[in-house]
Amino acid sequence: MTVSQNFNDWMLSNQRAIEDALSSYLPSVQQVPARLHEAMRYTALDGGKRVRPLLVFAAGALFDVDAGLLTRAAAAVEMIHVYSLVHDDMPCMDDDALRRGKPTVHVKYDEATALLVGDALQAQAFTVLSEGNGDAVRTLAMIRLLAQAAGSAGMCGGQAIDLASVGKSLSLPELEQMHRLKTGALLRASVFLGALCGKMLEPGEEAALDAYANAIGLAFQVVDDILDVTADSSTLGKTAGKDAADNKPTYVSILGLDASRQMAEKLLEQAQSALLPFGSKAERLNQIAELIVHRNA
Amino acid sequence: MTVSQNFNDWMLSNQRAIEDALSSYLPSVQQVPARLHEAMRYTALDGGKRVRPLLVFAAGALFDVDAGLLTRAAAAVEMIHVYSLVHDDMPCMDDDALRRGKPTVHVKYDEATALLVGDALQAQAFTVLSEGNGDAVRTLAMIRLLAQAAGSAGMCGGQAIDLASVGKSLSLPELEQMHRLKTGALLRASVFLGALCGKMLEPGEEAALDAYANAIGLAFQVVDDILDVTADSSTLGKTAGKDAADNKPTYVSILGLDASRQMAEKLLEQAQSALLPFGSKAERLNQIAELIVHRNA
Repeated sequence: MTVSQNFNDWMLSNQRAIEDALSSYLPSVQQVPARLHEAMRYTALDGGKRVRPLLVFAAGALFDVDAGLLTRAAAAVEMIHVYSLVHDDMPCMDDDALRRGKPTVHVKYDEATALLVGDALQAQAFTVLSEGNGDAVRTLAMIRLLAQAAGSAGMCGGQAIDLASVGKSLSLPELEQMHRLKTGALLRASVFLGALCGKMLEPGEEAALDAYANAIGLAFQVVDDILDVTADSSTLGKTAGKDAADNKPTYVSILGLDASRQMAEKLLEQAQSALLPFGSKAERLNQIAELIVHRNA
Repeated sequence: MTVSQNFNDWMLSNQRAIEDALSSYLPSVQQVPARLHEAMRYTALDGGKRVRPLLVFAAGALFDVDAGLLTRAAAAVEMIHVYSLVHDDMPCMDDDALRRGKPTVHVKYDEATALLVGDALQAQAFTVLSEGNGDAVRTLAMIRLLAQAAGSAGMCGGQAIDLASVGKSLSLPELEQMHRLKTGALLRASVFLGALCGKMLEPGEEAALDAYANAIGLAFQVVDDILDVTADSSTLGKTAGKDAADNKPTYVSILGLDASRQMAEKLLEQAQSALLPFGSKAERLNQIAELIVHRNA
């Protein structure tokens, strides 16, 4: 992966910022119930590439933003993402023992705790967003976007389609719809939440960000499917080859490896051309699109 | 139970209103994913006394309220409550097969669907609240209150303490703390959300509603514990005698039946005297306190 030193520094500094933000916005283990709070911190802190918070920060660079609200937005989307991982890993869903290189919450603690950790993280995401003292109208718009992206018309809905599709053959449009909901909706929300920290969006800005978000959302999943067959578990920090073993439809199983790689490159072009109206202010969003497509884990 | 005809009419009319509101604010089964939406509607519609929505409506009667926002608030608190029931009934938690007289979601559908139904209902609660077009500052305050009440400092936290307490002997203060979080927080949020549909609260109003909410929250649980040993499953619509069978600490197991009944009556008095500053505008809140203490299911 070719990442410029400048982008790498930006990424590291923002990954540190999101780590600090999550740590301060998650309840302390001194607070009752200590074990639940310990488990929430165990799963949310010190792990992951933080792609969604990076998207929030990168979209925030488009405008003059309220920095406090931006950090809250980054923490909130990551809490939603982390909660979804905790629940997805549970025995009744994907039944996975390893996540971000660590035992999953139901393995390290127990299933009931994993269920509550996810539930409490979702509530905490909305707490963090709503406790800011920025502009009320824009904050409300951000909450609305995040809630819609997390719910049955977004992430949860995609997960339900995913579960129902195991062992079935999906058409390419069906696979795309599943991923648009399952991972695309929250990536899109990350971009829009970051932008809304600056201003309410004009229709043209909204359309450009929509095109960008749709392209990187799809690219994210195509690359995930590629890595599932080409990378090993220790690099991924989760069990590799799992989709094939579970007989889940993927881009690689439908299109093959080469065509999937070409599709990812084409989506990168689409994402970057959608950002042209923003000029150099979109530098970070451009670089994240490249990161998503050219990552190796 | 002695309920005036007038209150009974009010209750029935508001129960119909919340049923209609839930039906319109829940995604239709025509929308993808149909099975998830069907399961969300199965568990949320046509069941329960709707105590929390009734509290929202009753607190709304204290002030001149935005009626649209009030209905959204009532639907949102009920969605949070219903999601918590769905998750609590799952095998890794209370493992219950019957709820509101119907098979629980994981029995009727499957565990993965129950998990997603709960997750999606929580998101939908915040969607419904944030999609209103009422006053942004008050809406944001309502979202903040609801998120705090639902999370680890509220309902989820109480559930975690409850799980950890099975088979242990709790002191009365420990038992109270558990219930203040587990059921009290959301009942309190219902009262405050209803009031906030009218105006931002003065400190005196806040203190009075806090005292009322704390008293009915505690009373609600004391009466639950009494009914768990005195009522049968068909009246309750859930499995009776379950707490005793699970060796869970209850007010009845700590205080005995008579002292628990006296405690419930005393809490009713406290709740009603807290409302005196509101005069006759608190009529519905007074009647709900009576309903909570004198219900038989």
